[in-house]
Amino acid sequence: MVTIRPATRDDAEALWSLLEPVIREGETYAFDRDMSRDRLLQKWLHHRAFIAEDDDGGAVGTYFLKRNHGGGGGHVANCGYVTDPSARGQGVARLMAEHSFEEARRQGFKAMQYNCVVSTNTGALRLWHLLGFRIVGTIPKGFEHPTRGLVDAYVMYRWLGD
Amino acid sequence: MVTIRPATRDDAEALWSLLEPVIREGETYAFDRDMSRDRLLQKWLHHRAFIAEDDDGGAVGTYFLKRNHGGGGGHVANCGYVTDPSARGQGVARLMAEHSFEEARRQGFKAMQYNCVVSTNTGALRLWHLLGFRIVGTIPKGFEHPTRGLVDAYVMYRWLGD
Repeated sequence: MVTIRPATRDDAEALWSLLEPVIREGETYAFDRDMSRDRLLQKWLHHRAFIAEDDDGGAVGTYFLKRNHGGGGGHVANCGYVTDPSARGQGVARLMAEHSFEEARRQGFKAMQYNCVVSTNTGALRLWHLLGFRIVGTIPKGFEHPTRGLVDAYVMYRWLGD
Repeated sequence: MVTIRPATRDDAEALWSLLEPVIREGETYAFDRDMSRDRLLQKWLHHRAFIAEDDDGGAVGTYFLKRNHGGGGGHVANCGYVTDPSARGQGVARLMAEHSFEEARRQGFKAMQYNCVVSTNTGALRLWHLLGFRIVGTIPKGFEHPTRGLVDAYVMYRWLGD
Protein backbone atom coordinates (compact mmCIF):
# COMPACT_ATOMS: atom_id res chain seq x y z
CA MET A 1 0.00 0.00 0.00
CA VAL A 2 1.50 3.29 -1.11
CA THR A 3 0.54 6.59 0.50
CA ILE A 4 1.30 10.09 -0.72
CA ARG A 5 1.85 13.12 1.48
CA PRO A 6 3.36 16.60 1.09
CA ALA A 7 7.15 16.60 1.16
CA THR A 8 9.14 18.93 3.39
CA ARG A 9 12.76 19.88 4.01
CA ASP A 10 12.86 16.93 6.44
CA ASP A 11 12.52 14.60 3.45
CA ALA A 12 15.69 15.93 1.85
CA GLU A 13 17.59 12.66 2.21
CA ALA A 14 14.81 10.54 0.73
CA LEU A 15 14.14 13.01 -2.08
CA TRP A 16 17.78 13.17 -3.01
CA SER A 17 18.07 9.39 -3.11
CA LEU A 18 15.11 9.31 -5.52
CA LEU A 19 16.16 12.26 -7.67
CA GLU A 20 19.93 11.97 -7.92
CA PRO A 21 20.10 8.87 -10.15
CA VAL A 22 17.50 10.28 -12.55
CA ILE A 23 19.22 13.65 -12.84
CA ARG A 24 22.69 12.14 -13.21
CA GLU A 25 21.46 9.74 -15.90
CA GLY A 26 20.00 12.66 -17.86
CA GLU A 27 17.76 10.59 -20.11
CA THR A 28 14.30 11.75 -19.06
CA TYR A 29 14.60 15.05 -17.18
CA ALA A 30 15.64 18.43 -18.52
CA PHE A 31 17.66 19.18 -15.40
CA ASP A 32 21.40 19.75 -15.46
CA ARG A 33 23.09 16.40 -14.91
CA ASP A 34 25.72 17.86 -12.60
CA MET A 35 23.23 19.79 -10.49
CA SER A 36 24.20 19.90 -6.80
CA ARG A 37 22.08 18.32 -4.07
CA ASP A 38 21.24 21.71 -2.58
CA ARG A 39 20.27 23.27 -5.89
CA LEU A 40 18.11 20.34 -6.91
CA LEU A 41 16.29 20.12 -3.59
CA GLN A 42 15.80 23.87 -3.61
CA LYS A 43 14.21 23.63 -7.05
CA TRP A 44 12.08 20.60 -6.20
CA LEU A 45 10.83 21.97 -2.88
CA HIS A 46 10.39 25.49 -4.21
CA HIS A 47 7.12 24.21 -5.63
CA ARG A 48 4.56 22.10 -3.86
CA ALA A 49 6.20 18.68 -3.65
CA PHE A 50 4.89 15.29 -2.58
CA ILE A 51 6.46 12.03 -1.55
CA ALA A 52 5.08 8.51 -2.01
CA GLU A 53 5.92 5.94 0.66
CA ASP A 54 5.37 2.22 0.99
CA ASP A 55 4.10 0.44 4.11
CA ASP A 56 7.52 0.58 5.74
CA GLY A 57 7.83 4.33 5.21
CA GLY A 58 10.35 3.82 2.40
CA ALA A 59 10.26 6.54 -0.26
CA VAL A 60 9.18 5.09 -3.61
CA GLY A 61 8.41 8.25 -5.54
CA THR A 62 8.08 12.01 -5.56
CA TYR A 63 6.47 14.70 -7.66
CA PHE A 64 6.22 18.47 -7.76
CA LEU A 65 3.24 20.58 -8.81
CA LYS A 66 3.39 24.17 -10.03
CA ARG A 67 1.81 26.67 -12.40
CA ASN A 68 3.11 26.20 -15.91
CA HIS A 69 2.93 29.93 -16.64
CA GLY A 70 1.66 33.01 -14.84
CA GLY A 71 -1.06 35.44 -15.90
CA GLY A 72 -3.33 34.14 -18.65
CA GLY A 73 -1.53 30.80 -18.49
CA GLY A 74 -2.11 30.43 -14.77
CA HIS A 75 -4.92 27.87 -15.07
CA VAL A 76 -2.52 25.25 -16.45
CA ALA A 77 -0.53 23.13 -13.99
CA ASN A 78 2.79 21.42 -14.56
CA CYS A 79 4.20 18.40 -12.74
CA GLY A 80 7.30 16.27 -12.72
CA TYR A 81 7.33 12.73 -11.31
CA VAL A 82 10.12 10.38 -10.31
CA THR A 83 9.60 6.75 -9.28
CA ASP A 84 12.26 4.66 -7.58
CA PRO A 85 13.52 2.03 -10.05
CA SER A 86 13.04 -0.72 -7.43
CA ALA A 87 9.33 0.17 -7.20
CA ARG A 88 8.62 0.26 -10.93
CA GLY A 89 5.71 -1.75 -12.30
CA GLN A 90 3.73 -1.36 -9.07
CA GLY A 91 1.59 1.52 -10.23
CA VAL A 92 3.42 4.16 -8.20
CA ALA A 93 3.74 6.58 -11.11
CA ARG A 94 0.09 6.18 -11.94
CA LEU A 95 -0.90 6.71 -8.31
CA MET A 96 1.20 9.88 -8.13
CA ALA A 97 -0.24 11.15 -11.41
CA GLU A 98 -3.82 10.64 -10.27
CA HIS A 99 -2.97 12.24 -6.94
CA SER A 100 -1.51 15.20 -8.80
CA PHE A 101 -4.63 15.66 -10.94
CA GLU A 102 -6.79 15.76 -7.81
CA GLU A 103 -4.39 18.12 -6.11
CA ALA A 104 -4.26 20.37 -9.17
CA ARG A 105 -8.07 20.47 -9.36
CA ARG A 106 -8.21 21.26 -5.66
CA GLN A 107 -5.90 24.19 -6.28
CA GLY A 108 -8.15 25.45 -9.06
CA PHE A 109 -6.14 24.38 -12.09
CA LYS A 110 -8.10 23.51 -15.23
CA ALA A 111 -5.48 21.62 -17.22
CA MET A 112 -2.16 19.82 -16.88
CA GLN A 113 0.76 20.26 -19.25
CA TYR A 114 4.09 18.45 -19.49
CA ASN A 115 6.55 20.56 -21.44
CA CYS A 116 9.36 18.20 -22.29
CA VAL A 117 8.44 14.53 -22.47
CA VAL A 118 11.44 12.88 -24.09
CA SER A 119 10.32 10.84 -27.10
CA THR A 120 12.52 7.90 -26.09
CA ASN A 121 10.82 7.68 -22.67
CA THR A 122 8.31 5.09 -23.85
CA GLY A 123 7.18 4.09 -20.36
CA ALA A 124 6.12 7.63 -19.54
CA LEU A 125 4.46 8.11 -22.93
CA ARG A 126 2.41 4.94 -22.47
CA LEU A 127 1.24 6.03 -19.02
CA TRP A 128 0.37 9.59 -20.06
CA HIS A 129 -1.66 8.30 -22.98
CA LEU A 130 -3.44 5.85 -20.68
CA LEU A 131 -4.28 8.73 -18.36
CA GLY A 132 -5.89 10.82 -21.07
CA PHE A 133 -3.00 12.98 -22.23
CA ARG A 134 -2.30 13.66 -25.83
CA ILE A 135 0.72 14.99 -27.63
CA VAL A 136 -0.16 18.57 -28.55
CA GLY A 137 3.32 19.52 -29.68
CA THR A 138 6.52 18.00 -30.99
CA ILE A 139 9.79 19.84 -30.49
CA PRO A 140 12.14 18.59 -33.21
CA LYS A 141 15.51 17.67 -31.68
CA GLY A 142 14.28 19.28 -28.49
CA PHE A 143 16.26 16.99 -26.18
CA GLU A 144 19.87 15.89 -26.24
CA HIS A 145 19.87 12.31 -25.01
CA PRO A 146 23.21 11.22 -23.48
CA THR A 147 23.50 8.15 -25.71
CA ARG A 148 21.03 8.69 -28.58
CA GLY A 149 21.90 12.30 -29.35
CA LEU A 150 19.27 14.84 -30.37
CA VAL A 151 15.79 13.37 -30.13
CA ASP A 152 12.33 14.92 -30.27
CA ALA A 153 10.52 16.09 -27.16
CA TYR A 154 6.75 16.20 -26.77
CA VAL A 155 4.41 18.68 -25.17
CA MET A 156 1.59 16.68 -23.57
CA TYR A 157 -1.67 18.12 -22.31
CA ARG A 158 -4.84 17.10 -20.60
CA TRP A 159 -7.89 19.09 -19.57
CA LEU A 160 -8.73 18.35 -15.94
CA GLY A 161 -12.38 19.30 -16.15
CA ASP A 162 -14.15 22.24 -14.58
CA MET B 1 18.34 54.17 -36.14
CA VAL B 2 17.69 51.72 -33.35
CA THR B 3 20.53 50.20 -31.35
CA ILE B 4 20.40 47.28 -28.95
CA ARG B 5 22.59 46.83 -25.89
CA PRO B 6 22.54 44.73 -22.72
CA ALA B 7 20.15 46.06 -20.08
CA THR B 8 21.21 46.59 -16.48
CA ARG B 9 19.64 47.57 -13.18
CA ASP B 10 20.24 51.19 -14.23
CA ASP B 11 17.62 50.72 -16.95
CA ALA B 12 14.92 49.85 -14.40
CA GLU B 13 12.83 52.95 -15.11
CA ALA B 14 12.88 52.50 -18.88
CA LEU B 15 12.22 48.76 -18.65
CA TRP B 16 9.30 49.26 -16.32
CA SER B 17 7.75 51.88 -18.61
CA LEU B 18 7.97 49.36 -21.48
CA LEU B 19 6.81 46.33 -19.55
CA GLU B 20 4.14 47.63 -17.21
CA PRO B 21 1.44 48.34 -19.83
CA VAL B 22 1.93 44.94 -21.48
CA ILE B 23 1.77 43.05 -18.20
CA ARG B 24 -1.21 45.00 -16.90
CA GLU B 25 -3.09 44.47 -20.18
CA GLY B 26 -2.51 40.71 -19.93
CA GLU B 27 -3.32 39.90 -23.54
CA THR B 28 -0.01 38.63 -24.82
CA TYR B 29 2.23 37.70 -21.89
CA ALA B 30 1.77 34.89 -19.39
CA PHE B 31 2.89 37.09 -16.51
CA ASP B 32 0.65 37.93 -13.57
CA ARG B 33 -1.19 41.13 -14.41
CA ASP B 34 -0.79 42.53 -10.90
CA MET B 35 2.91 41.74 -10.68
CA SER B 36 4.87 44.39 -8.78
CA ARG B 37 7.56 46.51 -10.38
CA ASP B 38 10.27 44.90 -8.27
CA ARG B 39 9.16 41.37 -9.00
CA LEU B 40 8.84 41.95 -12.72
CA LEU B 41 12.22 43.66 -13.05
CA GLN B 42 13.78 40.93 -10.94
CA LYS B 43 12.35 38.32 -13.31
CA TRP B 44 13.29 40.21 -16.47
CA LEU B 45 16.83 41.02 -15.37
CA HIS B 46 17.40 37.61 -13.81
CA HIS B 47 18.06 36.45 -17.36
CA ARG B 48 20.22 38.18 -19.91
CA ALA B 49 18.14 41.19 -20.93
CA PHE B 50 18.58 43.76 -23.69
CA ILE B 51 17.17 47.17 -24.40
CA ALA B 52 16.54 48.79 -27.78
CA GLU B 53 16.97 52.56 -28.02
CA ASP B 54 16.31 55.12 -30.71
CA ASP B 55 18.68 57.92 -31.74
CA ASP B 56 17.66 60.03 -28.77
CA GLY B 57 18.35 57.24 -26.29
CA GLY B 58 14.63 56.64 -25.79
CA ALA B 59 13.77 53.03 -24.94
CA VAL B 60 11.66 51.47 -27.69
CA GLY B 61 11.89 47.81 -26.79
CA THR B 62 13.37 45.12 -24.59
CA TYR B 63 13.87 41.40 -24.63
CA PHE B 64 15.24 38.67 -22.39
CA LEU B 65 17.12 35.56 -23.40
CA LYS B 66 17.42 32.37 -21.36
CA ARG B 67 17.65 28.61 -21.58
CA ASN B 68 14.24 27.08 -22.13
CA HIS B 69 15.11 23.99 -20.07
CA GLY B 70 18.20 22.62 -18.35
CA GLY B 71 20.02 19.36 -18.98
CA GLY B 72 19.15 17.69 -22.29
CA GLY B 73 16.98 20.68 -23.16
CA GLY B 74 19.78 23.16 -22.60
CA HIS B 75 20.52 23.75 -26.28
CA VAL B 76 17.16 25.46 -26.80
CA ALA B 77 16.85 29.17 -26.01
CA ASN B 78 13.75 31.09 -25.02
CA CYS B 79 13.07 34.80 -25.42
CA GLY B 80 10.37 37.32 -24.65
CA TYR B 81 10.12 40.65 -26.48
CA VAL B 82 8.24 43.84 -25.77
CA THR B 83 8.05 46.79 -28.15
CA ASP B 84 6.80 50.22 -27.14
CA PRO B 85 3.41 50.85 -28.78
CA SER B 86 4.59 54.25 -30.05
CA ALA B 87 7.42 52.53 -31.93
CA ARG B 88 5.35 49.81 -33.58
CA GLY B 89 5.59 49.31 -37.33
CA GLN B 90 9.21 50.47 -37.40
CA GLY B 91 10.76 47.04 -37.38
CA VAL B 92 11.88 47.18 -33.74
CA ALA B 93 10.49 43.75 -32.88
CA ARG B 94 12.14 42.23 -35.92
CA LEU B 95 15.43 43.90 -35.09
CA MET B 96 15.28 42.58 -31.52
CA ALA B 97 14.38 39.09 -32.74
CA GLU B 98 17.29 38.97 -35.18
CA HIS B 99 19.59 40.33 -32.49
CA SER B 100 18.37 37.60 -30.13
CA PHE B 101 19.05 34.83 -32.69
CA GLU B 102 22.62 36.09 -33.11
CA GLU B 103 23.06 36.41 -29.37
CA ALA B 104 21.63 32.92 -28.81
CA ARG B 105 23.97 31.43 -31.42
CA ARG B 106 26.88 33.25 -29.84
CA GLN B 107 25.96 31.64 -26.52
CA GLY B 108 25.92 28.21 -28.16
CA PHE B 109 22.17 27.65 -28.44
CA LYS B 110 20.99 25.54 -31.36
CA ALA B 111 17.29 26.43 -31.43
CA MET B 112 14.79 29.00 -30.21
CA GLN B 113 11.43 28.14 -28.66
CA TYR B 114 8.52 30.34 -27.65
CA ASN B 115 6.31 28.47 -25.21
CA CYS B 116 3.13 30.48 -25.07
CA VAL B 117 2.34 32.55 -28.16
CA VAL B 118 -1.26 33.63 -27.68
CA SER B 119 -3.30 32.68 -30.75
CA THR B 120 -5.01 36.09 -30.81
CA ASN B 121 -1.64 37.88 -31.02
CA THR B 122 -1.71 38.03 -34.81
CA GLY B 123 1.08 40.59 -35.11
CA ALA B 124 3.52 38.36 -33.28
CA LEU B 125 2.41 35.28 -35.21
CA ARG B 126 2.98 37.03 -38.52
CA LEU B 127 6.45 38.13 -37.51
CA TRP B 128 7.50 34.75 -36.13
CA HIS B 129 6.38 33.04 -39.31
CA LEU B 130 8.28 35.59 -41.39
CA LEU B 131 11.38 34.86 -39.34
CA GLY B 132 11.25 31.13 -39.98
CA PHE B 133 9.34 29.89 -36.95
CA ARG B 134 6.64 27.32 -37.19
CA ILE B 135 3.91 26.28 -34.83
CA VAL B 136 5.05 22.94 -33.40
CA GLY B 137 2.36 22.73 -30.76
CA THR B 138 -1.12 24.00 -29.97
CA ILE B 139 -2.25 24.17 -26.36
CA PRO B 140 -6.06 24.06 -26.41
CA LYS B 141 -7.47 26.81 -24.20
CA GLY B 142 -3.93 27.36 -22.99
CA PHE B 143 -4.40 31.09 -22.36
CA GLU B 144 -7.12 33.03 -20.62
CA HIS B 145 -7.47 36.27 -22.53
CA PRO B 146 -8.92 39.13 -20.45
CA THR B 147 -11.70 39.87 -22.97
CA ARG B 148 -11.90 36.80 -25.24
CA GLY B 149 -11.77 34.14 -22.55
CA LEU B 150 -9.92 30.86 -23.03
CA VAL B 151 -8.02 30.84 -26.30
CA ASP B 152 -5.37 28.52 -27.74
CA ALA B 153 -1.68 29.13 -27.23
CA TYR B 154 1.04 28.05 -29.60
CA VAL B 155 4.48 26.60 -29.10
CA MET B 156 6.71 28.05 -31.83
CA TYR B 157 10.16 26.79 -32.73
CA ARG B 158 13.04 27.50 -35.01
CA TRP B 159 16.36 25.81 -35.49
CA LEU B 160 19.16 28.38 -35.38
CA GLY B 161 21.68 26.35 -37.35
CA ASP B 162 24.88 24.76 -36.15
